[in-house]
Order: sequence, then C-alpha cells, then structure tokens
Amino acid sequence: MVFDRDEYRERLSRCRKAMAERGIEVLIESDPANMNYLTGYDGWSFYYAQAVIVTLEDEDPLWIGRGVDIAGVRLTTFLTEENIVPWPDHLVDNAVNHPMEFFAEQLSARGLGRKAIGFDPDSYQFTPRCLDVLQAALPNARFVVAPRLVNWLRVLKSEAEIKVMVEAARITESIMRAFFEVVRPGLRECDAIGEIYKAQAAGTKAFGGEYCCVAPLMPTGEGTATPHMTWSDRKFQTGEATYLETAGVRHRYHVPMVRAVHLGAPPQQLVDTSKAVNEGIEAALAAARPGNSCEEVEAAWRKAISRYSIEKESRIGYSIGVGYPPDWGEHTVSLRPRDKSVLQENMALHMVCGIWDQDWGGVSFSEPFHVSSNGAVLFAKVPRELHVKQ
Amino acid sequence: MVFDRDEYRERLSRCRKAMAERGIEVLIESDPANMNYLTGYDGWSFYYAQAVIVTLEDEDPLWIGRGVDIAGVRLTTFLTEENIVPWPDHLVDNAVNHPMEFFAEQLSARGLGRKAIGFDPDSYQFTPRCLDVLQAALPNARFVVAPRLVNWLRVLKSEAEIKVMVEAARITESIMRAFFEVVRPGLRECDAIGEIYKAQAAGTKAFGGEYCCVAPLMPTGEGTATPHMTWSDRKFQTGEATYLETAGVRHRYHVPMVRAVHLGAPPQQLVDTSKAVNEGIEAALAAARPGNSCEEVEAAWRKAISRYSIEKESRIGYSIGVGYPPDWGEHTVSLRPRDKSVLQENMALHMVCGIWDQDWGGVSFSEPFHVSSNGAVLFAKVPRELHVKQ
Repeated sequence: MVFDRDEYRERLSRCRKAMAERGIEVLIESDPANMNYLTGYDGWSFYYAQAVIVTLEDEDPLWIGRGVDIAGVRLTTFLTEENIVPWPDHLVDNAVNHPMEFFAEQLSARGLGRKAIGFDPDSYQFTPRCLDVLQAALPNARFVVAPRLVNWLRVLKSEAEIKVMVEAARITESIMRAFFEVVRPGLRECDAIGEIYKAQAAGTKAFGGEYCCVAPLMPTGEGTATPHMTWSDRKFQTGEATYLETAGVRHRYHVPMVRAVHLGAPPQQLVDTSKAVNEGIEAALAAARPGNSCEEVEAAWRKAISRYSIEKESRIGYSIGVGYPPDWGEHTVSLRPRDKSVLQENMALHMVCGIWDQDWGGVSFSEPFHVSSNGAVLFAKVPRELHVKQ
Repeated sequence: MVFDRDEYRERLSRCRKAMAERGIEVLIESDPANMNYLTGYDGWSFYYAQAVIVTLEDEDPLWIGRGVDIAGVRLTTFLTEENIVPWPDHLVDNAVNHPMEFFAEQLSARGLGRKAIGFDPDSYQFTPRCLDVLQAALPNARFVVAPRLVNWLRVLKSEAEIKVMVEAARITESIMRAFFEVVRPGLRECDAIGEIYKAQAAGTKAFGGEYCCVAPLMPTGEGTATPHMTWSDRKFQTGEATYLETAGVRHRYHVPMVRAVHLGAPPQQLVDTSKAVNEGIEAALAAARPGNSCEEVEAAWRKAISRYSIEKESRIGYSIGVGYPPDWGEHTVSLRPRDKSVLQENMALHMVCGIWDQDWGGVSFSEPFHVSSNGAVLFAKVPRELHVKQ
C-alpha cells in the first residue's frame, strides 16, 4: 500500500461526510482514479464494469469487479476477503446479461437495495447501460446524481501526496532532459519517443517510473497547430518546432509538463509569442496564492498577454493528482473566467498555456505546481524557454 | 489518410445499412476506435465529449468535438470544413453547461432534432449525462439503443486492414525480442519496460510504432497470479516467471501478444502447465477455420486441456483491430461457450490462454491471428514457449 491505513481512513471519512451532505447512503464509484484514491486499488481492469462501493455505515468499502482481477485487489489494497467480490467471467462482452445485474444482487444481498444510491453521471466507466440495468434491478432504490463527488475530495492534497508528487517531478525532469537531448534533424519522431518512454519508465535511480495515463503528445512541424497529436515516423527537420506534453508518474500521481525544442533559428513570431506566453505564466504563478480565486489567476495571465495582443479562449490550468486513462485532469477546478474556486494550500495544478494558430503553428509551455502558504511552488525545475538546437 | 477514400465510403455505406435495419436515422458515435474507423480521425481528445454523427441521408459524417482539436481532424480525416464543428472551450469541466447542449443545437439546426437517434448505451465516452442532456434538449427525437453497431462492422477486415495488421505484427515481434533479451536477474522491472516501450515506439526501420492503448502488462513473481498488473521498480530474481502482454501498433491497429520468460530452471508445475496450455492453443488454432463457430474453437481448447485436469472459466479470445484506451478488444465475438458467431475469412482475433492460480502463480500464452480460407494464420512469428534464461 502506498499510503498508510490512516490516510485511507481519513479519505473514506471525508467521502462519507460528502455523501451524507447530499443524502447519499451508498456510493458506487467506477472512476479508476477515484477507486485508487479510496482504496489504493491499481490494475488495468477499468475496461469492464467495476466499482468501489462506499456506504455510510461500513468502515471498509466493497470492491466489485471481474474475477481475474481479484489477486490485484489483494496486492494493492487494504481490503479483506469479505469485501472483495468478483463477478463471473461469462458477463464479459455478454450481449444479454450485464455485470451490473451482479452488482444489484450484491447490493440487495447486503441490505442496500432500498437505499439512496449515488453515482457520477459523467464518469466514463459508468455507462447509460450500467445505470439502466442497476435501476431496473433495484426498483426500490433511489438514484442520486453525485457529480465528481470523490474528485472534489482529491483537490486538497495531504503532505504525503505532495511528497509523492515531488518524487514524480524528478521523473518529469528526467523525461524533459531526454527530450532536449534526443530531438535532432534526421531522427524519426518515433525513435525520439522511444527514448522519452524509456526515461518515463526508468524514472530515477531511487525509484522507477510508471505508465503515464496519456500517450506522449508531441506535435511537430505542421502538427503544432493542434495540441493532441501523438507522433509519426516522420523525421525532424531544421526550421521546425516540436512540443512534448507528458508526465512523470509515481504511485499513479502525475506531474505533467509541456516544453519545446526548436531546430535551427526560430522565426521571430515564435520568439515573440514564447516571450509573451512565459510572461503570462509568470504573472499567473505570482497570483496563485492561497485566498485568490481561479479566475483571478487567469486574469493575471490575460492581462499580461494582452500587452502582446494575444488572446486565448481555452482555460490555462486544472487540478492534477492520481491519473488513469484517458486523462490526468481531476475534472474539478479550472483556471479560467467564472471559476470562483479559491486556491488553498496543498492544491496541485497544471498551468498549461498553449496558443494554437492555424497559420503558423503554436506555442505552448506549462508549469505543474502546488500552492503553499507563500504561493505557487513549482514541482519540477526545467527551464521554461524555447530550447533552440542549432 | 491511412486508407483510400473508397474504403471509408464502403465503411460508411455499411454503417448506414446497419442503421436502416434498426430504424436509426442519425447515429451518434463517441467510441474513439469507431470514430477512427468511420473517418480516420486520430487524436488524444477522447476525454471530453466528441462524436462522429452519421445520417442516413448525408454522404459524409459530421465531427463534433472540442475546438482545440479541429486541426487534428483536418490532418487525419477526409472531412471538409462544413462537417467539422467545434464546441467552445468554456464547456470543458463546466459544472452547469454540458457539451451535449451544443450537440443538440447542431442537430436541430441541421434538421435532425426530430429523428430516430441511435447511440451505444455501453460505450465509455457516451455517459449517462450525455444521454440525459441530449434527450432533454431534443424532446421530439426518438432515442434508439444501438449496442456495438459500428464495432460489429469492424469484425470483418478488408485486405488493406489485414495488410496494416501484418505490419503491426512486425513490431510485436520486435517488442518480444526486446523482452526476451532484457529480462535478467538484478535488473529493475521499470528498466526492462523502458526497453520494451522503446521497441514499441521505434517499430521497424521501414515504419515506426505507435502508442499501445494498454500500458505494458508485466506480472512477475507473486504478481503472476493476476493478469492486469503493470510493473514496479522491484528487481527480477532467479526462480521467477515474468509475463509480458502488449501490442505492436500500426495506424492504430493492434496486434497483441503474451509471452513468458523464466529466470533459472522452471518448476515442474510451470513446465507441465505451459505444455498443456500450448497444446490447447494448437488445438484451438486448428479449429479456427471459416464455418466453425467461436464456441467450437473454445471446445477444442477445453478438450485438449482437460487431459491435464486443467479448467479455465474465462474466455480464450476476442476480436481485435483498431484500439484506443482503455482496451484493444472490439467487444464483439468471444471464443467461449455459447458464442455461436461463425468464423469467416478476414476476421482477426487474439487467442489468449491464461491459467491463473493463487497458490503458484500462472501461465499465459497467446496468439494473434486472422482467419484465411485455409484456417488460422498467425500474425507474428514468436516461439510460443517458456523462454528460459539460465
């Protein structure tokens, strides 16, 4: 187990409090990051129905999932045998019967079939069919939407979590060193990614890296007009910019970062926009103090870049922590207008400022940081500038 | 574009036929593998609401997704500007408004607001909230469940798709060579994974590799009792088995494989079970001929291993092709009892036979193959045996 038993007890206790406030007696939580947060569970099993079930009355949650995965539950969680419940394998890709029928039987058998059952209506792993089957099988239950209930518990990190993220940041630094080192004219993008993956997995001498929940995103050349391309087997060319967005990962905690390499002398437009973006980031980081709101942080960015006649529609940051595919964002606070969430000590965010332009490409830099009593503390120390290689 | 325009026309034409048969006039398809299959679209943007919309009347589908991703649509699909529709960024992680409100406006504006709208009720990207918002905003539409409609179109591969998968298999072979080479006593698991990732990304001299939609799964030591663990920074030890399950990927087509390394002389139990599993695989492959059903293939496996008093509850294979996180399975045919789907030429499957045991660990081997008129043709040539390193 990654954290001590008391840390999980505290998380579950806060979960119950949040449930009680919303009139929820039983929470069915299928988001793998939330399952990990509540129990420590870690396994690549989130492509079939599984959930951690938290009740107001029981100290320990239930884990219900596919039978072949229960050894992984034993290895990664504090749960005891009676709380680990496997569904039978014939329910995999079964056109007639659904694993949620099994969930309903289990809830009924435990006297939970007439309770107020909370679920996240916008979580990928809990599909319309999951809800439909569960509702049909538990006609006496009351279903209550609980959007991002556990996600919001994750926003404030414990000291132990910050420590893990600081470790993940050492891997982030190692990945970016590999990126700056490897990109050169004539090398295939896929070969550069090979070295980047290697740095990500190897981690440091003291501790290894884990899989990142997003593939390395490395727009280059004409692809820099869009942030979410991966890579190809095309060769790097002099005169082109290449961006890398990926994360160092430790105990499933992600510390993501965007950096850029330019082969040969960069065009003035890129130099100027990079300067503007970096000034904007500095201004926003300076505003990222406890007591300021998310929209105030974004306003500082907006004011700084407006001097350069640059605008940006999309948000400039979001909360980070435990990550599973498809993304490392916590889906809670965003640095943008109208987000009035107030920054507090031990929040962790990824400030990411990309300016994408269909004509000349784009510029993107980011900083992962946590909020201390004195303001933003960067997780990783990587020069935030266009890394020019002649 | 990966395939020529006619191949996409053919796919869309079969999609319309399947829609018409189910009384569906408009299909909203959010599964990234299905979006790729219908349009070529490839981008890591599937963590927010996006979809390809196919109608019975229009030749080309619509792509609706987040604004920052439209340059990626232009780069990877045949869609023209009027069919690429971005939603505004303030809808990201917005607690009040949802991107599906924008989808509803677009459908209404195009005269599709009163049609029979099909959706997959068990697809991760289309959540209960997506459905709820769409239904509320389009009260005159009729919503029709269309489970795995496009997935089923993908089961039969074209010659062009088989060719791409044969290329992916060259990468699978290269990955397994790296795996056999690198595992040794005293090396950290994470450092072995670094080399495996590198082989996966680098691909071959002729073409590069792509990201695999599942992290490398590498159970080792006590972790071999469960198939879906990734890796740690523990060191390999003599006397332990290590399994690797991952895929070579080309144009998003996955050719997965499981192989095993044992450091030092393997225990007799492992040798015997490996022999039994491999005999079972041989028997099942021999039965994988056009005209035989999926359950007949599984029965051949079951009969072969019964001689060794081994049983296996879980299925021994499934259809493969385009893959995006969280898994490479097509969620259609399964090699198991009661699956009466009949094998046809140009189906592609992953036969994966793992025997997991809480007491002594497990054994797992697999073969990705396609069905030819003469029977199963293995995609990759990698010796299927316990690779013993002394």
